[in-house]
Amino acid sequence: MAEHTIQFDLTPERKLKPKSEELGFGKVFTDHMFVMDYTEGQGWHNPRITPYQPLTLDPSSMVFHYGQSVFEGLKAYMTEDNRILLFRPERNFQRLNRSNERLCIPELDEELALEALKQLILTEKEWIPNAEGTSLYIRPFIISTEPFLGVAPSSQYKFIIILSPVGSYYKEGIHPVKILVESEFVRAVAGGTGEAKTAGNYASSLKAQEVASRKEYSQVLWLDGLEKKYIEEVGSMNVFFKINGEIITPALNGSILEGITRNSVIELLKHWGMPVAERRISMEEIREAYKSGQLEEAFGTGTAAVISPIGEFFWNGEKMTVNQGATGPTAKKLYDTITSIQNGKEPDPFNWVVEVDQYITAK
Amino acid sequence: MAEHTIQFDLTPERKLKPKSEELGFGKVFTDHMFVMDYTEGQGWHNPRITPYQPLTLDPSSMVFHYGQSVFEGLKAYMTEDNRILLFRPERNFQRLNRSNERLCIPELDEELALEALKQLILTEKEWIPNAEGTSLYIRPFIISTEPFLGVAPSSQYKFIIILSPVGSYYKEGIHPVKILVESEFVRAVAGGTGEAKTAGNYASSLKAQEVASRKEYSQVLWLDGLEKKYIEEVGSMNVFFKINGEIITPALNGSILEGITRNSVIELLKHWGMPVAERRISMEEIREAYKSGQLEEAFGTGTAAVISPIGEFFWNGEKMTVNQGATGPTAKKLYDTITSIQNGKEPDPFNWVVEVDQYITAK
Repeated sequence: MAEHTIQFDLTPERKLKPKSEELGFGKVFTDHMFVMDYTEGQGWHNPRITPYQPLTLDPSSMVFHYGQSVFEGLKAYMTEDNRILLFRPERNFQRLNRSNERLCIPELDEELALEALKQLILTEKEWIPNAEGTSLYIRPFIISTEPFLGVAPSSQYKFIIILSPVGSYYKEGIHPVKILVESEFVRAVAGGTGEAKTAGNYASSLKAQEVASRKEYSQVLWLDGLEKKYIEEVGSMNVFFKINGEIITPALNGSILEGITRNSVIELLKHWGMPVAERRISMEEIREAYKSGQLEEAFGTGTAAVISPIGEFFWNGEKMTVNQGATGPTAKKLYDTITSIQNGKEPDPFNWVVEVDQYITAK
Repeated sequence: MAEHTIQFDLTPERKLKPKSEELGFGKVFTDHMFVMDYTEGQGWHNPRITPYQPLTLDPSSMVFHYGQSVFEGLKAYMTEDNRILLFRPERNFQRLNRSNERLCIPELDEELALEALKQLILTEKEWIPNAEGTSLYIRPFIISTEPFLGVAPSSQYKFIIILSPVGSYYKEGIHPVKILVESEFVRAVAGGTGEAKTAGNYASSLKAQEVASRKEYSQVLWLDGLEKKYIEEVGSMNVFFKINGEIITPALNGSILEGITRNSVIELLKHWGMPVAERRISMEEIREAYKSGQLEEAFGTGTAAVISPIGEFFWNGEKMTVNQGATGPTAKKLYDTITSIQNGKEPDPFNWVVEVDQYITAK
């Protein structure tokens, strides 16, 4: 384990921290980051916490050309009694390894990654904002760094964790968004990389988002790549519908990202005794439910927003309003419960929350 | 145009050039590179030829996370009478702009890009190898550089051209490869990014290639993402079949890369009066042609290999040998003709070749 001892190279220079009310998303980073290298033959090595600094990479580094890149996103919360909480972080590192497998990136030691994250957060604990709705956004990512233009898996990688204090997603309270159902562009298809959290999925989604924004829709709803009938995701979130009392979300099919908030929502709904189904669901079924007055709610789920209520769909020239464009009771209850578990205000019957211990582990 | 004047910052330090016989692919780079920046509001600016050097990028630079990245690949050839030739380079920059459009990257001035390339090549002309089959590989690419974790098009980019002297693709003469027909993984689907030369397409292809290599196949043949019936590409090349005297290549359908070698092959075949068709073609049709003895040839086309004859397909448990595993006459004639046009040994009836003038344009 000697080669896995995390080294600390801390800087006395501390940046000015933004005020809570000025916090945005993903533009301000803390004083330090975690870095670990991979070299073929040697494996992952040299885990270290270093000053936050630019990466120095050869222009031929493979990530620029062939996009071997995976990432995760999660948050740390400061409770009212000054405990630091993470929400199901082990699932992020499990998913990172599933993404690695698809992208031919070497497997990471999940325990070491979680330990590294905890150490980094403790190093940066003064950066965790504590105002309502704020948190410390965590971005673990892996990039291929071998300087080589051959199309092949890289022999060198970097695993990096950076931290960014972020403001409340809903500065004026949780509110519904308008969604354009996408019928030209495709996010992913079975046999592709839709299930992996990899850079290329996001690059390919930008064009549809641009078209939707121009039409004043917040996000696109992605249909399946084969028949363009079945619902997959909304923007970069999973999606749920409440139809005649039952809550339905598309089943994982190989092209849908296995969201951690998605899973938490399903477990909570079951815990509350509400009927929930993971199954294939078509846009036509949504339209019929809308027509018959049975489409009661719709919402997206993801780390950034937690729950994002949907107030309107636009599909094939037809506008469909959900719950009179207001946030529905299920979405609201899920949002309140999950955020309260995340920031330690409510009990955590599922053991989802992981406390970052207030000490540096002796090495 | 003042802001588009290319600045020169040349280094007196020159690296050792590898010997012709030691040249590989894409591992050795020349002394200089071309760089130009893009900033929203300012557009593309500061075009410059600088010493080849590492890029310094914030860890939050968008390319690492959301993969907005496009590239091209072409070659410069040194003729026996010391002229420097490029092969249809304007098509590479046209395609780069088509890739840009799909990836929400700002359009590039194609004339400026070509001028920049010529200036860079003239700066590095001593790096162009002249042994049989060798060339100077050219890699123009664009990456998103804004330090921001929001999923949106970047407001900053870098356009870079790097050069790498490369050896002959066929060190022991042109020879056929064995191909595994891929039936699990998918390269691209209509509505996705298959038509664009973007990093994510290559990242997603690695897994299938890894499986094929383990089974001792050189490349995979990609079927369409919808029905997994129709032929799309082979490895990162376009593909052609000769069936009963007719040459067939899959029609461009939105998920197939529009190869410049592909286009040149079609034009040459027409020029020779050979029947050539761009149409949808299924793997079942290939199998039937094989069974009836009418599958005469198969080959891939691309910048690296020019022509890559295929000697064997493996599909659904069945091995199909093409032309007794030997290079066919059409593949050989195409290879000889195109490479001879590229290196100036044969006349160029199509005006494909662009000579890099032996002077620095006065500014």
